[in-house]
Amino acid sequence: MKRLLDEPALRSLARGCAVLGTGGGGDPHIGLLLALQTLEEVGPAELVDLDDLEDDELIMPCGMVGAPTVHIEKIENGGEGAVLREHLERITGRRVAALMSAEIGGSNGLLPLAWAARMGLPVVDADGMGRAFPLIPQVTMHLAGIDPNPGVMCDERGNVLVFRAVSGEWMERLERSAAGEFGGAGAATEYPMTVGQARGATVRGTVSLAIRIGDALTAAAGDPIAALLAVTGGFRLLSGKVTDVERRTTKGFVRGSVEIEGLGSDTGRPLRLEIQNENLVALSHGTVLASVPDLITVLDSETADAIPTERVRYGQRVTVIAMACAPVWRTPFGLEMAGPRAFGYDFDYRSVEELAGAGA
Amino acid sequence: MKRLLDEPALRSLARGCAVLGTGGGGDPHIGLLLALQTLEEVGPAELVDLDDLEDDELIMPCGMVGAPTVHIEKIENGGEGAVLREHLERITGRRVAALMSAEIGGSNGLLPLAWAARMGLPVVDADGMGRAFPLIPQVTMHLAGIDPNPGVMCDERGNVLVFRAVSGEWMERLERSAAGEFGGAGAATEYPMTVGQARGATVRGTVSLAIRIGDALTAAAGDPIAALLAVTGGFRLLSGKVTDVERRTTKGFVRGSVEIEGLGSDTGRPLRLEIQNENLVALSHGTVLASVPDLITVLDSETADAIPTERVRYGQRVTVIAMACAPVWRTPFGLEMAGPRAFGYDFDYRSVEELAGAGA
Repeated sequence: MKRLLDEPALRSLARGCAVLGTGGGGDPHIGLLLALQTLEEVGPAELVDLDDLEDDELIMPCGMVGAPTVHIEKIENGGEGAVLREHLERITGRRVAALMSAEIGGSNGLLPLAWAARMGLPVVDADGMGRAFPLIPQVTMHLAGIDPNPGVMCDERGNVLVFRAVSGEWMERLERSAAGEFGGAGAATEYPMTVGQARGATVRGTVSLAIRIGDALTAAAGDPIAALLAVTGGFRLLSGKVTDVERRTTKGFVRGSVEIEGLGSDTGRPLRLEIQNENLVALSHGTVLASVPDLITVLDSETADAIPTERVRYGQRVTVIAMACAPVWRTPFGLEMAGPRAFGYDFDYRSVEELAGAGA
Repeated sequence: MKRLLDEPALRSLARGCAVLGTGGGGDPHIGLLLALQTLEEVGPAELVDLDDLEDDELIMPCGMVGAPTVHIEKIENGGEGAVLREHLERITGRRVAALMSAEIGGSNGLLPLAWAARMGLPVVDADGMGRAFPLIPQVTMHLAGIDPNPGVMCDERGNVLVFRAVSGEWMERLERSAAGEFGGAGAATEYPMTVGQARGATVRGTVSLAIRIGDALTAAAGDPIAALLAVTGGFRLLSGKVTDVERRTTKGFVRGSVEIEGLGSDTGRPLRLEIQNENLVALSHGTVLASVPDLITVLDSETADAIPTERVRYGQRVTVIAMACAPVWRTPFGLEMAGPRAFGYDFDYRSVEELAGAGA
């Protein structure tokens, strides 16, 4: 499978990445603008399946690290991918065969496409999360035991850092700290791997899935939310109005919460979202409706467009949905890395299917 | 000139580095212990003059970056120099011929000796300051236009960062931030250069000078402070008692102030020192007695041993002296990088010779 991503595909992809971003991964609107500009200047990016590549070829997972809020105003210059690749190739002594989004969610699902197109390299139809997560080692490559080294990070000024960290957690600390120094965000690659490794260490088909989600929203007549739930197998948690937003950007993260009051058939029901870059937990009267690693996304009730964390505002009419995460996140190691307790919550994970079934 | 540094030389060097450290550069006691241990395990380090080396050989300036307060408890493992060298050689494709202290002051005047001895490499009789300064680009290599890249930094855990910074100021920001993440301090090299470059870009003979200072203190009978002033050409500012110390460690720096009340012939005269890792300014009743880039050192009034910033305590009987800096720091670029205004003070630099002459 090979596919050239034209403008309609990029626009659908952006809508899908927003849905899978669960509020984070960077505002996909910025990623879309960069991807469209690249399309105009150098032509379409090529999407390939991991099975189209040779086992021993090198994959470069990449994206932006930092607070999505910053990313709205501190925009990439488009050349970051080439800088990351140059340093990764110099250090490893190997040629990069394809780029991959470290996370499909948000702008990070689009940026690697723009970077790859400028270099004449393909992007693989896979990512390292199947969603967006705030921390560097919260990737399926980490679960599969891939070495995070070498990491490379750069900013739009020309600063470059190369990391050899003793663990994924140290890679996180060192990259986060550099992102803060860069002004809140930087471009990065880590967990480089061969195609053979990637086949068992990534969430496959997520670029195609994001495009299908966007296509479904575009084609939907009347009820785009129903169309979205159909294509994702997701669950509607609540429709209502945003009544309070608390959000602060510190140390390279956006943290906060959103309060939503039910409207229509949900009148009288409140919903609270807790946030660290992404939507982590949805609660109603203290009862968990859904939590990481499952996906929780805030949609515009009219258009079903996903609203990134940093765009949620008082008074918005929204619908909150939840979707099942990639199965690997439900393993003991997956939950240790990205379950509720990994984010400091004192409750055990229950799948959205189970919780939605209990609530129904 | 080549010289093997035996135990008496190392002990003298430590006393001299403390004096030239102007309170900073890390507690020389820690550096001395590491140097003595290395002497016992692998034999003496070799001190060479830049004129003993070939023009195109590579010099690696190095030392610890971070807050000296942290350095007292977070001790190196002795292998940091080898890690820095390995990465610098891999990146530049060149062999390191000798190490050099980035700053002669404090522990950083001794550590590179210990590192070099373990690798069988010599240390050059020169440094990048002729004293200690808090910031990475506050080195004579920066004044001479040497590129700070590549920088390499590591910690005792095995984490390694390689930097390509767009300026010395960015190298400072990125290394400081990593030092903070490491727990307050890390080992680093930057401004690599050839021997030919180093001849015009360093303060030469400072290791020998530090040993001579230590020798003079050891040999002095009766009045070690007079012996110290004779060997350094320094000026006595005040003898008295420490009456107040304010000190806080934040973002990889120690900042604060020390109040001293004159005793004996100085009774009734106060002296205030302002600190950022090093002693920056000495004031009496608001009048500047000495300031950066000249050296200000706090001595034990009995032994003339220099007291590092982090060891100054209420009630200590101390004598404060000032010494002329290396001439290059008095050039316009030197003062821009390390004069009073570089540290946020709103007054013009006047040399210690001029100020001491005016006060006499």
